[in-house]
Amino acid sequence: MDIDYSVYLVTDQFDYSQEEFLKIIEEAIIGGTTIVQLREKKSSTRDFYNLALKVKQITDKYDVPLIINDRLDIAQAVDSAGVHLGQDDMPCKVAREILGEDKIIGISAENYADAKQGELDGANYLGIGAIVATSTKTDCSVISREDLELVKENINIPRVAIGGVKEHNTRELINDYSFDGVAIVSAIMLADNPNTASENFSKLVKE
Amino acid sequence: MDIDYSVYLVTDQFDYSQEEFLKIIEEAIIGGTTIVQLREKKSSTRDFYNLALKVKQITDKYDVPLIINDRLDIAQAVDSAGVHLGQDDMPCKVAREILGEDKIIGISAENYADAKQGELDGANYLGIGAIVATSTKTDCSVISREDLELVKENINIPRVAIGGVKEHNTRELINDYSFDGVAIVSAIMLADNPNTASENFSKLVKE
Repeated sequence: MDIDYSVYLVTDQFDYSQEEFLKIIEEAIIGGTTIVQLREKKSSTRDFYNLALKVKQITDKYDVPLIINDRLDIAQAVDSAGVHLGQDDMPCKVAREILGEDKIIGISAENYADAKQGELDGANYLGIGAIVATSTKTDCSVISREDLELVKENINIPRVAIGGVKEHNTRELINDYSFDGVAIVSAIMLADNPNTASENFSKLVKE
Repeated sequence: MDIDYSVYLVTDQFDYSQEEFLKIIEEAIIGGTTIVQLREKKSSTRDFYNLALKVKQITDKYDVPLIINDRLDIAQAVDSAGVHLGQDDMPCKVAREILGEDKIIGISAENYADAKQGELDGANYLGIGAIVATSTKTDCSVISREDLELVKENINIPRVAIGGVKEHNTRELINDYSFDGVAIVSAIMLADNPNTASENFSKLVKE
Protein backbone atom coordinates (compact mmCIF):
# COMPACT_ATOMS: atom_id res chain seq x y z
CA MET A 1 0.00 0.00 0.00
CA ASP A 2 1.67 3.18 -1.14
CA ILE A 3 -0.48 5.90 0.39
CA ASP A 4 0.14 9.63 0.10
CA TYR A 5 -0.73 11.02 3.54
CA SER A 6 0.43 14.57 2.80
CA VAL A 7 -2.98 16.33 2.84
CA TYR A 8 -5.40 14.23 4.86
CA LEU A 9 -8.91 15.68 4.98
CA VAL A 10 -11.08 14.68 7.96
CA THR A 11 -14.68 15.58 7.20
CA ASP A 12 -17.19 17.34 9.40
CA GLN A 13 -20.66 18.19 8.13
CA PHE A 14 -20.86 21.39 10.20
CA ASP A 15 -24.07 23.10 8.96
CA TYR A 16 -23.66 22.17 5.31
CA SER A 17 -26.31 20.57 3.15
CA GLN A 18 -25.25 17.19 1.80
CA GLU A 19 -24.76 18.73 -1.65
CA GLU A 20 -22.47 21.44 -0.25
CA PHE A 21 -20.61 18.86 1.84
CA LEU A 22 -19.91 16.61 -1.14
CA LYS A 23 -18.89 19.61 -3.25
CA ILE A 24 -16.31 20.66 -0.64
CA ILE A 25 -14.79 17.19 -0.61
CA GLU A 26 -14.50 17.18 -4.39
CA GLU A 27 -13.01 20.69 -4.46
CA ALA A 28 -10.51 19.71 -1.76
CA ILE A 29 -9.38 16.68 -3.76
CA ILE A 30 -9.02 18.74 -6.93
CA GLY A 31 -6.92 21.20 -4.91
CA GLY A 32 -4.53 18.57 -3.60
CA THR A 33 -6.13 16.56 -0.77
CA THR A 34 -4.54 13.11 -1.03
CA ILE A 35 -6.70 11.06 1.36
CA VAL A 36 -10.18 11.53 2.88
CA GLN A 37 -11.52 10.33 6.22
CA LEU A 38 -15.30 10.31 6.58
CA ARG A 39 -16.16 11.00 10.20
CA GLU A 40 -19.82 10.81 11.28
CA LYS A 41 -20.47 10.52 14.98
CA LYS A 42 -24.19 11.28 15.05
CA SER A 43 -25.69 9.63 11.96
CA SER A 44 -27.74 6.46 11.94
CA THR A 45 -25.99 3.50 10.34
CA ARG A 46 -28.23 3.81 7.28
CA ASP A 47 -27.45 7.50 6.80
CA PHE A 48 -23.73 6.92 7.35
CA TYR A 49 -23.80 4.07 4.82
CA ASN A 50 -25.64 6.12 2.20
CA LEU A 51 -23.34 9.10 2.68
CA ALA A 52 -20.25 6.88 2.52
CA LEU A 53 -21.44 5.48 -0.83
CA LYS A 54 -21.69 9.02 -2.18
CA VAL A 55 -18.29 10.10 -0.84
CA LYS A 56 -16.74 6.91 -2.24
CA GLN A 57 -17.98 7.81 -5.72
CA ILE A 58 -15.98 11.03 -5.44
CA THR A 59 -12.82 9.51 -3.97
CA ASP A 60 -12.93 6.70 -6.55
CA LYS A 61 -13.32 9.25 -9.36
CA TYR A 62 -10.01 10.86 -8.34
CA ASP A 63 -8.35 7.65 -7.16
CA VAL A 64 -7.95 8.96 -3.62
CA PRO A 65 -8.24 6.52 -0.69
CA LEU A 66 -11.34 6.77 1.53
CA ILE A 67 -10.93 6.02 5.23
CA ILE A 68 -13.99 5.49 7.47
CA ASN A 69 -13.83 6.77 11.04
CA ASP A 70 -14.61 4.20 13.75
CA ARG A 71 -17.08 1.97 11.90
CA LEU A 72 -15.68 -1.22 10.42
CA ASP A 73 -19.16 -2.21 9.24
CA ILE A 74 -19.48 0.92 7.10
CA ALA A 75 -15.94 0.39 5.78
CA GLN A 76 -16.81 -3.15 4.71
CA ALA A 77 -20.19 -2.14 3.28
CA VAL A 78 -18.68 0.47 0.94
CA ASP A 79 -15.33 -1.30 0.48
CA SER A 80 -13.34 1.72 1.65
CA ALA A 81 -9.54 1.66 1.66
CA GLY A 82 -9.61 1.37 5.44
CA VAL A 83 -10.65 2.66 8.83
CA HIS A 84 -9.40 5.16 11.36
CA LEU A 85 -9.77 4.08 14.98
CA GLY A 86 -9.65 6.22 18.08
CA GLN A 87 -8.78 4.87 21.51
CA ASP A 88 -12.54 4.50 22.21
CA ASP A 89 -13.13 2.54 19.00
CA MET A 90 -12.44 -1.11 18.15
CA PRO A 91 -9.05 -2.39 19.31
CA CYS A 92 -6.56 -2.43 16.42
CA LYS A 93 -5.87 -6.17 16.58
CA VAL A 94 -9.59 -7.05 16.52
CA ALA A 95 -10.09 -4.70 13.56
CA ARG A 96 -7.20 -6.37 11.72
CA GLU A 97 -8.76 -9.81 12.23
CA ILE A 98 -12.05 -8.57 10.78
CA LEU A 99 -10.67 -6.49 7.89
CA GLY A 100 -7.66 -8.57 6.92
CA GLU A 101 -4.22 -7.44 5.80
CA ASP A 102 -5.30 -5.49 2.70
CA LYS A 103 -7.16 -2.70 4.50
CA ILE A 104 -5.52 0.37 5.97
CA ILE A 105 -5.92 0.78 9.73
CA GLY A 106 -5.04 4.13 11.25
CA ILE A 107 -4.88 4.71 15.00
CA SER A 108 -5.27 7.96 16.96
CA ALA A 109 -2.49 8.61 19.43
CA GLU A 110 -2.58 11.38 22.03
CA ASN A 111 0.82 10.46 23.40
CA TYR A 112 3.90 8.37 22.70
CA ALA A 113 2.58 5.28 24.49
CA ASP A 114 -0.55 5.18 22.29
CA ALA A 115 1.61 5.64 19.20
CA LYS A 116 4.03 2.84 20.09
CA GLN A 117 1.12 0.52 20.94
CA GLY A 118 -0.53 1.31 17.60
CA GLU A 119 2.66 0.45 15.76
CA LEU A 120 3.04 -2.78 17.74
CA ASP A 121 -0.60 -3.69 17.03
CA GLY A 122 -0.04 -3.46 13.30
CA ALA A 123 -1.51 -0.07 12.44
CA ASN A 124 -0.63 1.20 8.96
CA TYR A 125 -0.39 4.81 10.08
CA LEU A 126 -0.94 7.01 13.11
CA GLY A 127 -2.92 10.21 13.64
CA ILE A 128 -0.90 12.13 16.23
CA GLY A 129 -2.44 14.95 18.23
CA ALA A 130 -4.03 17.15 19.14
CA ILE A 131 -1.18 19.41 18.07
CA VAL A 132 -2.87 22.42 19.65
CA ALA A 133 -6.26 22.77 21.36
CA THR A 134 -9.11 22.64 18.85
CA SER A 135 -12.83 23.22 18.78
CA THR A 136 -13.84 20.40 16.35
CA LYS A 137 -12.80 17.49 18.56
CA THR A 138 -13.05 18.42 22.19
CA ASP A 139 -12.23 14.98 23.65
CA CYS A 140 -8.57 15.12 22.57
CA SER A 141 -5.79 16.39 24.80
CA VAL A 142 -2.75 18.19 23.38
CA ILE A 143 0.35 16.04 22.91
CA SER A 144 3.54 17.25 24.57
CA ARG A 145 6.58 18.34 22.55
CA GLU A 146 8.58 15.65 24.36
CA ASP A 147 6.19 12.99 23.06
CA LEU A 148 6.35 14.45 19.55
CA GLU A 149 10.14 14.02 19.73
CA LEU A 150 9.79 10.42 20.96
CA VAL A 151 7.38 9.67 18.11
CA LYS A 152 9.79 11.18 15.61
CA GLU A 153 12.72 9.13 16.94
CA ASN A 154 11.05 5.79 17.61
CA ILE A 155 8.06 5.25 15.34
CA ASN A 156 8.60 3.75 11.91
CA ILE A 157 5.14 3.90 10.32
CA PRO A 158 3.62 6.93 8.59
CA ARG A 159 2.06 9.56 10.81
CA VAL A 160 -0.10 12.59 10.29
CA ALA A 161 -0.44 15.55 12.61
CA ILE A 162 -4.04 16.26 13.67
CA GLY A 163 -5.83 18.79 15.82
CA GLY A 164 -5.32 22.47 15.31
CA VAL A 165 -3.20 22.12 12.16
CA LYS A 166 -3.35 25.33 10.12
CA GLU A 167 -1.29 26.73 7.29
CA HIS A 168 0.90 28.71 9.70
CA ASN A 169 2.12 25.67 11.69
CA THR A 170 2.33 23.06 8.91
CA ARG A 171 5.96 23.70 7.93
CA GLU A 172 7.09 23.40 11.55
CA LEU A 173 5.32 20.04 11.94
CA ILE A 174 6.87 18.63 8.78
CA ASN A 175 10.36 20.05 9.39
CA ASP A 176 10.71 19.63 13.14
CA TYR A 177 8.80 16.39 13.69
CA SER A 178 9.03 14.63 10.30
CA PHE A 179 5.29 14.11 9.86
CA ASP A 180 4.24 12.45 6.60
CA GLY A 181 1.26 14.72 6.33
CA VAL A 182 -1.25 16.93 8.05
CA ALA A 183 -4.84 16.02 8.91
CA ILE A 184 -7.18 18.95 8.43
CA VAL A 185 -10.78 19.48 9.47
CA SER A 186 -11.90 23.09 9.68
CA ALA A 187 -9.00 24.70 7.77
CA ILE A 188 -10.39 22.98 4.66
CA MET A 189 -14.05 22.26 5.50
CA LEU A 190 -14.65 25.84 6.66
CA ALA A 191 -12.30 27.54 4.17
CA ASP A 192 -13.71 30.17 1.83
CA ASN A 193 -12.12 28.14 -0.93
CA PRO A 194 -11.44 24.46 -0.05
CA ASN A 195 -9.61 23.97 -3.34
CA THR A 196 -7.09 26.74 -2.65
CA ALA A 197 -6.76 25.69 1.01
CA SER A 198 -5.85 22.14 -0.05
CA GLU A 199 -3.41 23.47 -2.60
CA ASN A 200 -1.73 25.60 0.05
CA PHE A 201 -1.40 22.65 2.45
CA SER A 202 -0.06 20.51 -0.37
CA LYS A 203 2.65 23.05 -1.16
CA LEU A 204 3.54 23.50 2.52
CA VAL A 205 3.92 19.74 3.07
CA LYS A 206 5.79 18.99 -0.15
CA GLU A 207 8.08 22.02 -0.33
CA MET B 1 -30.23 -22.70 12.32
CA ASP B 2 -32.84 -23.95 14.74
CA ILE B 3 -33.47 -20.96 16.98
CA ASP B 4 -35.99 -20.81 19.81
CA TYR B 5 -37.47 -17.31 19.60
CA SER B 6 -40.08 -17.84 22.30
CA VAL B 7 -38.67 -15.49 24.98
CA TYR B 8 -36.47 -12.90 23.27
CA LEU B 9 -34.83 -10.49 25.71
CA VAL B 10 -33.81 -7.09 24.33
CA THR B 11 -31.47 -5.42 26.78
CA ASP B 12 -31.52 -1.87 28.05
CA GLN B 13 -29.04 -0.69 30.68
CA PHE B 14 -31.53 1.70 32.28
CA ASP B 15 -29.76 2.92 35.46
CA TYR B 16 -28.11 -0.39 36.31
CA SER B 17 -24.46 -0.87 37.10
CA GLN B 18 -22.76 -3.24 34.68
CA GLU B 19 -22.68 -5.92 37.37
CA GLU B 20 -26.45 -5.61 37.96
CA PHE B 21 -27.07 -5.55 34.20
CA LEU B 22 -25.13 -8.77 33.58
CA LYS B 23 -26.81 -10.42 36.58
CA ILE B 24 -30.27 -9.65 35.17
CA ILE B 25 -29.35 -11.20 31.82
CA GLU B 26 -28.12 -14.34 33.52
CA GLU B 27 -31.20 -14.56 35.76
CA ALA B 28 -33.45 -14.08 32.73
CA ILE B 29 -31.75 -16.93 30.87
CA ILE B 30 -32.00 -19.21 33.88
CA GLY B 31 -35.72 -18.36 34.06
CA GLY B 32 -36.40 -19.23 30.44
CA THR B 33 -35.16 -16.47 28.10
CA THR B 34 -34.20 -18.29 24.89
CA ILE B 35 -32.35 -15.56 22.96
CA VAL B 36 -30.70 -12.26 23.93
CA GLN B 37 -30.30 -9.08 21.88
CA LEU B 38 -27.73 -6.60 23.15
CA ARG B 39 -28.89 -3.10 22.28
CA GLU B 40 -26.56 -0.17 23.01
CA LYS B 41 -27.31 3.07 21.24
CA LYS B 42 -25.12 5.44 23.24
CA SER B 43 -21.90 3.54 23.98
CA SER B 44 -18.59 4.08 22.29
CA THR B 45 -17.51 1.21 20.04
CA ARG B 46 -14.92 0.16 22.62
CA ASP B 47 -17.43 0.07 25.46
CA PHE B 48 -19.99 -1.78 23.32
CA TYR B 49 -17.33 -4.30 22.32
CA ASN B 50 -16.18 -4.89 25.89
CA LEU B 51 -19.76 -5.25 27.13
CA ALA B 52 -20.63 -7.61 24.27
CA LEU B 53 -17.69 -9.85 25.23
CA LYS B 54 -19.06 -10.07 28.78
CA VAL B 55 -22.63 -10.77 27.68
CA LYS B 56 -21.36 -13.41 25.26
CA GLN B 57 -19.65 -15.25 28.12
CA ILE B 58 -23.07 -15.55 29.76
CA THR B 59 -25.03 -16.52 26.64
CA ASP B 60 -22.34 -19.07 25.70
CA LYS B 61 -22.47 -20.55 29.21
CA TYR B 62 -26.17 -21.34 28.74
CA ASP B 63 -25.96 -22.02 24.97
CA VAL B 64 -28.35 -19.17 24.16
CA PRO B 65 -27.83 -17.17 20.94
CA LEU B 66 -26.58 -13.59 21.27
CA ILE B 67 -27.85 -11.05 18.74
CA ILE B 68 -26.20 -7.62 18.41
CA ASN B 69 -28.43 -4.64 17.63
CA ASP B 70 -27.39 -2.57 14.61
CA ARG B 71 -23.62 -3.03 14.70
CA LEU B 72 -22.22 -5.67 12.34
CA ASP B 73 -18.69 -4.76 13.46
CA ILE B 74 -19.46 -5.64 17.08
CA ALA B 75 -21.20 -8.85 15.94
CA GLN B 76 -18.10 -9.88 14.00
CA ALA B 77 -15.72 -8.84 16.77
CA VAL B 78 -17.42 -11.04 19.39
CA ASP B 79 -18.63 -13.71 16.93
CA SER B 80 -22.26 -13.35 17.99
CA ALA B 81 -24.97 -15.55 16.47
CA GLY B 82 -26.18 -12.59 14.45
CA VAL B 83 -27.49 -9.06 14.25
CA HIS B 84 -30.80 -7.28 14.53
CA LEU B 85 -31.28 -4.42 12.07
CA GLY B 86 -33.81 -1.61 12.22
CA GLN B 87 -34.95 0.32 9.18
CA ASP B 88 -32.29 2.98 9.99
CA ASP B 89 -29.52 0.39 10.21
CA MET B 90 -27.56 -1.41 7.49
CA PRO B 91 -29.71 -2.72 4.61
CA CYS B 92 -30.37 -6.45 5.01
CA LYS B 93 -28.75 -7.47 1.71
CA VAL B 94 -25.55 -5.54 2.49
CA ALA B 95 -25.43 -7.11 5.93
CA ARG B 96 -25.81 -10.57 4.41
CA GLU B 97 -22.90 -9.97 2.05
CA ILE B 98 -20.70 -8.95 4.97
CA LEU B 99 -21.81 -11.60 7.48
CA GLY B 100 -22.41 -14.55 5.15
CA GLU B 101 -25.11 -17.21 5.30
CA ASP B 102 -24.27 -18.63 8.71
CA LYS B 103 -25.22 -15.57 10.76
CA ILE B 104 -28.76 -14.74 11.85
CA ILE B 105 -30.13 -11.46 10.53
CA GLY B 106 -33.31 -10.10 12.10
CA ILE B 107 -35.18 -7.12 10.69
CA SER B 108 -37.51 -4.69 12.46
CA ALA B 109 -40.86 -4.21 10.72
CA GLU B 110 -43.38 -1.55 11.70
CA ASN B 111 -45.81 -2.61 8.99
CA TYR B 112 -46.56 -5.39 6.52
CA ALA B 113 -44.48 -3.82 3.70
CA ASP B 114 -41.34 -3.76 5.88
CA ALA B 115 -42.01 -7.36 6.92
CA LYS B 116 -42.43 -8.62 3.35
CA GLN B 117 -39.32 -6.74 2.22
CA GLY B 118 -37.34 -8.26 5.09
CA GLU B 119 -38.43 -11.74 4.07
CA LEU B 120 -37.56 -11.05 0.41
CA ASP B 121 -34.16 -9.67 1.44
CA GLY B 122 -33.28 -12.89 3.21
CA ALA B 123 -33.85 -12.05 6.86
CA ASN B 124 -33.90 -15.05 9.19
CA TYR B 125 -36.60 -13.59 11.41
CA LEU B 126 -38.63 -10.43 11.93
CA GLY B 127 -39.27 -8.23 14.95
CA ILE B 128 -42.81 -6.95 14.43
CA GLY B 129 -44.12 -3.90 16.27
CA ALA B 130 -44.58 -1.81 18.20
CA ILE B 131 -47.54 -3.86 19.39
CA VAL B 132 -48.67 -1.05 21.66
CA ALA B 133 -47.08 2.33 22.41
CA THR B 134 -44.01 1.98 24.62
CA SER B 135 -41.62 4.19 26.54
CA THR B 136 -38.38 2.27 25.88
CA LYS B 137 -38.26 2.85 22.11
CA THR B 138 -40.03 6.04 21.20
CA ASP B 139 -39.17 6.05 17.49
CA CYS B 140 -41.43 3.09 16.68
CA SER B 141 -45.03 3.53 15.53
CA VAL B 142 -47.72 1.01 16.47
CA ILE B 143 -48.51 -1.61 13.82
CA SER B 144 -52.17 -1.91 12.76
CA ARG B 145 -54.22 -5.05 13.42
CA GLU B 146 -54.78 -5.32 9.66
CA ASP B 147 -51.03 -5.50 9.10
CA LEU B 148 -50.66 -8.06 11.89
CA GLU B 149 -53.21 -10.21 10.01
CA LEU B 150 -51.32 -9.75 6.73
CA VAL B 151 -48.07 -10.74 8.42
CA LYS B 152 -49.74 -13.83 9.89
CA GLU B 153 -51.15 -14.90 6.51
CA ASN B 154 -48.26 -14.05 4.19
CA ILE B 155 -44.93 -14.23 6.00
CA ASN B 156 -43.16 -17.55 6.27
CA ILE B 157 -40.14 -16.77 8.45
CA PRO B 158 -40.16 -16.66 12.26
CA ARG B 159 -41.39 -13.47 13.87
CA VAL B 160 -41.40 -12.01 17.34
CA ALA B 161 -43.75 -9.38 18.69
CA ILE B 162 -41.99 -6.33 20.12
CA GLY B 163 -42.97 -3.08 21.76
CA GLY B 164 -45.31 -3.05 24.72
CA VAL B 165 -45.43 -6.81 25.15
CA LYS B 166 -46.41 -7.71 28.71
CA GLU B 167 -47.62 -10.86 30.41
CA HIS B 168 -51.29 -9.82 29.97
CA ASN B 169 -51.14 -9.57 26.14
CA THR B 170 -48.72 -12.40 25.34
CA ARG B 171 -51.33 -15.17 24.94
CA GLU B 172 -53.35 -13.03 22.52
CA LEU B 173 -50.27 -12.36 20.36
CA ILE B 174 -49.36 -16.03 20.17
CA ASN B 175 -52.93 -17.30 19.66
CA ASP B 176 -54.36 -14.62 17.37
CA TYR B 177 -51.31 -13.72 15.31
CA SER B 178 -49.17 -16.89 15.47
CA PHE B 179 -46.00 -15.17 16.70
CA ASP B 180 -43.04 -17.46 17.35
CA GLY B 181 -42.12 -15.51 20.40
CA VAL B 182 -42.24 -12.25 22.29
CA ALA B 183 -39.46 -9.66 22.52
CA ILE B 184 -39.29 -8.11 25.95
CA VAL B 185 -37.40 -5.11 27.25
CA SER B 186 -38.78 -3.58 30.44
CA ALA B 187 -41.08 -6.43 31.53
CA ILE B 188 -37.89 -8.42 32.18
CA MET B 189 -35.15 -5.78 32.61
CA LEU B 190 -37.24 -3.80 35.11
CA ALA B 191 -38.98 -6.79 36.76
CA ASP B 192 -38.60 -7.30 40.50
CA ASN B 193 -37.52 -10.82 39.60
CA PRO B 194 -36.21 -11.24 36.02
CA ASN B 195 -35.98 -14.99 36.51
CA THR B 196 -39.68 -15.35 37.40
CA ALA B 197 -40.70 -12.86 34.69
CA SER B 198 -38.88 -14.94 32.04
CA GLU B 199 -40.43 -18.10 33.40
CA ASN B 200 -43.90 -16.55 33.16
CA PHE B 201 -43.34 -15.44 29.54
CA SER B 202 -41.98 -18.86 28.68
CA LYS B 203 -45.11 -20.55 30.06
CA LEU B 204 -47.42 -18.08 28.29
CA VAL B 205 -45.70 -18.63 24.92
CA LYS B 206 -45.38 -22.40 25.14
CA GLU B 207 -48.72 -23.26 26.77
